[in-house]
Amino acid sequence: MPQTSLQAADRVRTVYEEEHEQFREMVRDFVERYARPNAERWEAEGKVDRWLFEKAAETGILGFTVPEEFGGGGTDDFRFNAVMGEELARNPVSDGMAGIALSNDIVIPYFLELTDDEQKRRWLPGIAAGTLITAVAMTEPGTGSDLAGIRTSAVRDGDHYVVNGSKIFISNGQNADLVVTAVRTGSDPHKGLSLLVIEADTPGFSRGRNLDKVGLHAQDTSELVFENVRVPAANLLGAEGQGFLGLMRNLPQERLSIAAAAAASSEGVIERAMTYVKERQAFGRPVATFQNTRFELADMFTATQVSRAYIDQCIARHSRGELSAEDAAAAKYWTTEQYVQIVNRCLQLYGGYGYMREYRIARDYEDARITTIYGGTTEIMKEIVGRSLGL
Amino acid sequence: MPQTSLQAADRVRTVYEEEHEQFREMVRDFVERYARPNAERWEAEGKVDRWLFEKAAETGILGFTVPEEFGGGGTDDFRFNAVMGEELARNPVSDGMAGIALSNDIVIPYFLELTDDEQKRRWLPGIAAGTLITAVAMTEPGTGSDLAGIRTSAVRDGDHYVVNGSKIFISNGQNADLVVTAVRTGSDPHKGLSLLVIEADTPGFSRGRNLDKVGLHAQDTSELVFENVRVPAANLLGAEGQGFLGLMRNLPQERLSIAAAAAASSEGVIERAMTYVKERQAFGRPVATFQNTRFELADMFTATQVSRAYIDQCIARHSRGELSAEDAAAAKYWTTEQYVQIVNRCLQLYGGYGYMREYRIARDYEDARITTIYGGTTEIMKEIVGRSLGL
Amino acid sequence: MPQTSLQAADRVRTVYEEEHEQFREMVRDFVERYARPNAERWEAEGKVDRWLFEKAAETGILGFTVPEEFGGGGTDDFRFNAVMGEELARNPVSDGMAGIALSNDIVIPYFLELTDDEQKRRWLPGIAAGTLITAVAMTEPGTGSDLAGIRTSAVRDGDHYVVNGSKIFISNGQNADLVVTAVRTGSDPHKGLSLLVIEADTPGFSRGRNLDKVGLHAQDTSELVFENVRVPAANLLGAEGQGFLGLMRNLPQERLSIAAAAAASSEGVIERAMTYVKERQAFGRPVATFQNTRFELADMFTATQVSRAYIDQCIARHSRGELSAEDAAAAKYWTTEQYVQIVNRCLQLYGGYGYMREYRIARDYEDARITTIYGGTTEIMKEIVGRSLGL
Amino acid sequence: MPQTSLQAADRVRTVYEEEHEQFREMVRDFVERYARPNAERWEAEGKVDRWLFEKAAETGILGFTVPEEFGGGGTDDFRFNAVMGEELARNPVSDGMAGIALSNDIVIPYFLELTDDEQKRRWLPGIAAGTLITAVAMTEPGTGSDLAGIRTSAVRDGDHYVVNGSKIFISNGQNADLVVTAVRTGSDPHKGLSLLVIEADTPGFSRGRNLDKVGLHAQDTSELVFENVRVPAANLLGAEGQGFLGLMRNLPQERLSIAAAAAASSEGVIERAMTYVKERQAFGRPVATFQNTRFELADMFTATQVSRAYIDQCIARHSRGELSAEDAAAAKYWTTEQYVQIVNRCLQLYGGYGYMREYRIARDYEDARITTIYGGTTEIMKEIVGRSLGL
Ligand SMILES: Cc1cc2nc3c(=O)[nH]c(=O)nc-3n(C[C@H](O)[C@H](O)[C@H](O)COP(=O)(O)OP(=O)(O)OC[C@H]3O[C@@H](n4cnc5c(N)ncnc54)[C@H](O)[C@@H]3O)c2cc1C
Ligand SMILES: Cc1cc2nc3c(=O)[nH]c(=O)nc-3n(C[C@H](O)[C@H](O)[C@H](O)COP(=O)(O)OP(=O)(O)OC[C@H]3O[C@@H](n4cnc5c(N)ncnc54)[C@H](O)[C@@H]3O)c2cc1C
Ligand SMILES: Cc1cc2nc3c(=O)[nH]c(=O)nc-3n(C[C@H](O)[C@H](O)[C@H](O)COP(=O)(O)OP(=O)(O)OC[C@H]3O[C@@H](n4cnc5c(N)ncnc54)[C@H](O)[C@@H]3O)c2cc1C
Ligand SMILES: Cc1cc2nc3c(=O)[nH]c(=O)nc-3n(C[C@H](O)[C@H](O)[C@H](O)COP(=O)(O)OP(=O)(O)OC[C@H]3O[C@@H](n4cnc5c(N)ncnc54)[C@H](O)[C@@H]3O)c2cc1C
Repeated sequence: MPQTSLQAADRVRTVYEEEHEQFREMVRDFVERYARPNAERWEAEGKVDRWLFEKAAETGILGFTVPEEFGGGGTDDFRFNAVMGEELARNPVSDGMAGIALSNDIVIPYFLELTDDEQKRRWLPGIAAGTLITAVAMTEPGTGSDLAGIRTSAVRDGDHYVVNGSKIFISNGQNADLVVTAVRTGSDPHKGLSLLVIEADTPGFSRGRNLDKVGLHAQDTSELVFENVRVPAANLLGAEGQGFLGLMRNLPQERLSIAAAAAASSEGVIERAMTYVKERQAFGRPVATFQNTRFELADMFTATQVSRAYIDQCIARHSRGELSAEDAAAAKYWTTEQYVQIVNRCLQLYGGYGYMREYRIARDYEDARITTIYGGTTEIMKEIVGRSLGL
Repeated sequence: MPQTSLQAADRVRTVYEEEHEQFREMVRDFVERYARPNAERWEAEGKVDRWLFEKAAETGILGFTVPEEFGGGGTDDFRFNAVMGEELARNPVSDGMAGIALSNDIVIPYFLELTDDEQKRRWLPGIAAGTLITAVAMTEPGTGSDLAGIRTSAVRDGDHYVVNGSKIFISNGQNADLVVTAVRTGSDPHKGLSLLVIEADTPGFSRGRNLDKVGLHAQDTSELVFENVRVPAANLLGAEGQGFLGLMRNLPQERLSIAAAAAASSEGVIERAMTYVKERQAFGRPVATFQNTRFELADMFTATQVSRAYIDQCIARHSRGELSAEDAAAAKYWTTEQYVQIVNRCLQLYGGYGYMREYRIARDYEDARITTIYGGTTEIMKEIVGRSLGL
Repeated sequence: MPQTSLQAADRVRTVYEEEHEQFREMVRDFVERYARPNAERWEAEGKVDRWLFEKAAETGILGFTVPEEFGGGGTDDFRFNAVMGEELARNPVSDGMAGIALSNDIVIPYFLELTDDEQKRRWLPGIAAGTLITAVAMTEPGTGSDLAGIRTSAVRDGDHYVVNGSKIFISNGQNADLVVTAVRTGSDPHKGLSLLVIEADTPGFSRGRNLDKVGLHAQDTSELVFENVRVPAANLLGAEGQGFLGLMRNLPQERLSIAAAAAASSEGVIERAMTYVKERQAFGRPVATFQNTRFELADMFTATQVSRAYIDQCIARHSRGELSAEDAAAAKYWTTEQYVQIVNRCLQLYGGYGYMREYRIARDYEDARITTIYGGTTEIMKEIVGRSLGL
Repeated sequence: MPQTSLQAADRVRTVYEEEHEQFREMVRDFVERYARPNAERWEAEGKVDRWLFEKAAETGILGFTVPEEFGGGGTDDFRFNAVMGEELARNPVSDGMAGIALSNDIVIPYFLELTDDEQKRRWLPGIAAGTLITAVAMTEPGTGSDLAGIRTSAVRDGDHYVVNGSKIFISNGQNADLVVTAVRTGSDPHKGLSLLVIEADTPGFSRGRNLDKVGLHAQDTSELVFENVRVPAANLLGAEGQGFLGLMRNLPQERLSIAAAAAASSEGVIERAMTYVKERQAFGRPVATFQNTRFELADMFTATQVSRAYIDQCIARHSRGELSAEDAAAAKYWTTEQYVQIVNRCLQLYGGYGYMREYRIARDYEDARITTIYGGTTEIMKEIVGRSLGL
């Protein structure tokens, strides 16, 4: 079987080692076995089955960063996260897997880094077993980019906080058991924020409907409503008023995670488009042979290879704890904007078929568009980079 | 009520006269009355109710170009088509209306210009009454851009043609009663093509399923299959072998129709985005007041105003019968590419809400993407313009 | 002689009438006769000969808007300005002609609209005869975009104003006899500005060196220095404190003038590039026949045709006194940004020859770049458009 | 002294080692000492003084790849070339230094890799001493991109070849003593090409005038004319008919060299623009503080950082002999197109000053534009990448 261009290009990469590639295979097998057969149903139902998390935990692709003593994999090498995100993004079968990647890359770090021992004991085993599904809730109907605008309030009352307000666009929102929730415990825009873990079975907690999105149809995204929810003070992550710091600490990894997925998605999109245009004929020749097609794909391929070098560098740096917030912001917006453009350009090469949902490119078009928005919009990322340059 | 920017901009337009604006009102009323209440259902069902065509005919917004003797409106002023397309595109309630615009702008001309008297008598009354729904079928699974690649064959057998083959991506495909079908009656790439009107109740004619598209969910698009369909030779449009000429004659209007809709769609998209960013707050101020937002919208607004001047000029020229094929091609790709970009840029300004289908911008994102492809891809349009320049 | 694409495209234009086309011929002849033979020398010397203004006045292409009683042409139809700008831009022989167009379009209006009768009598005859060369000086070393930042001061002293300060980047700066100068007569950012006509032979007035620019080598651009220049109060244009209003009144025409020239320049650039690629061979065929070349030129040609419709509409509106400041701003930045891009893309099509100054495209590259800056930068234009949209 | 953004960014780079940084210092000193004081004169004269090559050789920054036995530096680590190119590009004082970099990176490899012992002995000492200035001549008036179109003929006549034809756009063309010349020795498009070293003092060899370019004013670029030039057969590089192979072998390094310089140039341009906008005031605040400025610079900075990762990877790979021709092509067009865009965008941020040649950005604008053309145009690079992808 001849090598694809991507396989050839991958040969010059140095970021991963043997163990990461083995892990990639594991992810691939898991996807084939559990996600592919259910993909369409999940999409129709708007979320995945809860057992998927358990299966993933069992297989070792969920919770592998949780210490072994709590039932996890005990690694803290981000490259496992990255190789998994990459695999899911390049050969997407169902965006239903996103909830698992999200848990690993974005939510679990809160439980690892901001918890005290008691909290670890309480939650990590369930998380590592896939029986406690997690989410992180910052965004509110009235504020997203501006975290200082958060209004969901948590008022101390004895051993509890009484939480009122609502969150929106929360990934894993329908399935989540534990929601890391950014709440206002004081009036200072930043120092008045705290992080509370809210258990879904607490009275007063309710979920809005599963939101009707352009894409990511197998991934549940919901509004969450808090009406006098009494949350034990023991559920506070870190100290009161440290919420903003907690978010700042974790957002870079969230952004790198999105960036790495976007970079890999672009590669997958191009790879499939190349196959398509080599097969599709028009005017008696493969569409691939028109100079416009050749230039388009050469250009997109180059664009992704250039980004690849940067992202791999970022992954390597992050796995050594050296990635700055501004580099993560830069990586996030650069790769996602590129991804949106590349999907758009590749779809064109499919002609009418590009608009048919049975072709993956059509779903890529649906799925890609949110990436420049969630995890922090391109505009906010440019603000971060710009400010780091003293502008 | 203060004027919107678009209303202000419209004041400098000179293409329409009083009667066109009255017609616009009629369309607007019709949409409010018949389309809005059913929009969601049609979308779920993937097509509109057949009565919509009859209602539209009755109201005078379908078939107005059919001569009065056959029950139509008897106008041949393309500006009525244009103003209707514009109205539907700027304030879209349901893409279900597209089937009607398509009939007026794209299909009916075949019945008006290529039919003999007998054919006119047979079909025009039903078309003008909205009881005969029409479609035009060129594209096949194996060929779209390249009309010379058409393989659906029509073999003369006495008074009939026996048609075999299949067509794909046919708009109005589920509802159509009469399908103007490009068939191969000879081996010469161009001179071997003919146009046959195939009646949907002819044995051997069948419809594939309604295709699952990224957008245009209320507009039916289907595969059509012909298995030994015996079509009366009397259904031939023009002479045998004149099919390519017939298509060439009608494609400019098809393209201008798409262009005019795209230009108007862009205007609507921007208008709504301006409203949104003026209301939405972030960091204590309207999103509209960030310089990036202001520049983005100023730039998009300018882009549409520049295109507006060109499109109005094209409409005026076409209504005088003076628009060239290359100008139509230029208008088509320019406005649709701009539309795709503008939707993309505006969606960004909505943040997470832009991805929610309850916001119109999300549907615009879904609907816009096909416009650079159907009616002739951007690449084919550039070929046409390029060749007209002697390149 | 076969028609060029541009000649074909021009046929659909409706803005000009017979008399404008005759005027265009006059300009063309003038350029051939007087500018072409001296072009290279002027470029080397960094400015044109003063006699050029006199010859231009004599021929009727300078000062044609000055009332006949003062020796001018007595027209107030901006289309003469436009057709002249267009002719100079499309078939550029020497940017030395720019000083004349600048006088007509940008400076003379100050002398026509803001002068009282005495001033008219004093200056218009010389201006109309080309013996008084004019300039307008707003920009200072410390402020350009922000007119409110002007610091050159004019302090009333009896019948005179004593002017101190300096101006920079003043077109016609070396040749000018009369400089319409924006000066500060009060502390209010806007209401503290006035316009004074400063005569170049007034003691204390001096010119800096002719600035070394990327392009426009035959057009003199200079710093002007005012050291206790005593200017008669009779040289005030309009009332004291009305300077800002005077500028606001004239900037739209300045911008439209630049826009119209940029649009026409783009057309000329493309026309010449098409000729080049049809002749130049590579890999055994004309460069024109590579699909990339065809698409590039088809796209650029389309872009200019779309802009053409808008600009012609603006010209027509301005000649009826109906063009708004924001439309002028939009036209200015849109066409100049397009021009810069088009020059850049066309240059590429010339290969190495595109970098050689004996090819016009190389000079276009040099000359084009300033157009998005002078007369108000693209950023300022977007501010103006954005604000007009309530953003 | 606070760190610049670029210095901060450089800290994550891993490609260079201590010795390369020392070499960079050496280059920097050399430039300050020899190039800066003469920069303006060289520019006026259109070429550098011959002594510059000797000085450079003496200092060890010319000919460092020549084996020590012939008087060179004896290194074959491309990172010395790269760090030198980077230094010259980031902090350009005079493009006059380009001739030296060109010799090191582009011409000398022909003398090292394709020469036999006798030729090495004959030429390398002079080259390493800077007394023999070199050039490589492929392009002809009639053919550049298409090497198979080369027509300069070399007809064997006894011990000599008789060369007729002409070359154009030859860098170092006025100063060169030895010109590696691609000549036609047979009719086969590729196998009929050979490389001959032509000594400038051979009868029949003449130089055209120094070409008048948009930029690179201190770098001589000339036409070379061969009229019955008798070149000893001993001057043949490699075997007859191996010319095309020789070129193919060396073009990747030529392209990487241009790419590395372009990447570094972009960084320098942005660095200077950041300084400018932080100082320049408009509307009472630094231009840097407008959101548009911040976003522009954040975006450009990100773009260069992403490219930086790729280029460093390419440099590292090339220094290990692992860079493919298609990667070099990709790097070449990506970085140069980016450079042209970045210069263009940064120039805008300077307002009118950006157009003044006393500002470096104005010269960057002049100099940058050729980079997407020489060493192989962007279009040819995309062909190479596209073909490597099987398109
Ligand atoms: C599918 C999906 C999943 C999500 N998952 C989660 C989740 O799990 N948890 C969670 O907490 N959130 C989640 N989000 C929310 C997401 O992070 C926010 O939507 C995003 O941060 C943007 O916030 P917003 O929607 O309020 O937009 P806004 O903040 O209202 O922004 C609107 C526009 O204004 C722009 N803007 C804002 N500030 C500035 C500025 N200073 N300068 C210039 N422009 C500016 C923005 O860039 C944007 O274009 C999700 C969203 C989606 C759609
Ligand atoms: C929603 C929808 C509605 C439609 N409605 C109708 C309808 O009512 N009737 C009907 O007949 N058809 C209809 N179509 C079909 C539509 O017109 C075709 O899809 C379109 O013309 C493109 O043809 P294709 O899909 O076969 O693409 P292809 O021709 O296979 O093109 C694939 C890609 O190759 C490119 N390409 C092709 N030739 C060249 C070239 N020479 N140089 C460079 N690039 C080239 C194309 O631009 C495209 O990017 C519809 C399609 C859709 C999706
Ligand atoms: C060849 C030439 C001829 C000229 N002729 C004349 C003439 O005859 N008379 C005359 O008076 N002037 C003339 N000018 C000056 C010209 O009009 C100014 O250069 C121009 O208006 C920009 O001003 P500036 O150079 O001070 O730039 P600045 O105002 O310093 O601008 C620097 C940058 O900041 C940006 N910027 C400024 N404000 C904002 C904002 N609010 N938001 C975002 N970005 C912003 C600008 O867009 C620009 O990119 C000429 C200039 C040149 C180069
Ligand atoms: C300052 C300078 C220094 C130089 N130094 C040297 C030197 O030292 N030695 C040397 O040998 N040469 C040198 N060159 C020449 C340079 O390498 C050539 O100019 C370049 O390779 C392009 O060749 P060309 O100018 O003949 O353009 P052409 O080959 O005529 O190309 C014209 C246009 O056609 C396009 N084109 C060509 N083929 C295709 C295709 N298949 N598909 C699509 N588009 C195509 C090109 O991309 C270009 O846009 C120099 C040039 C300059 C300007």
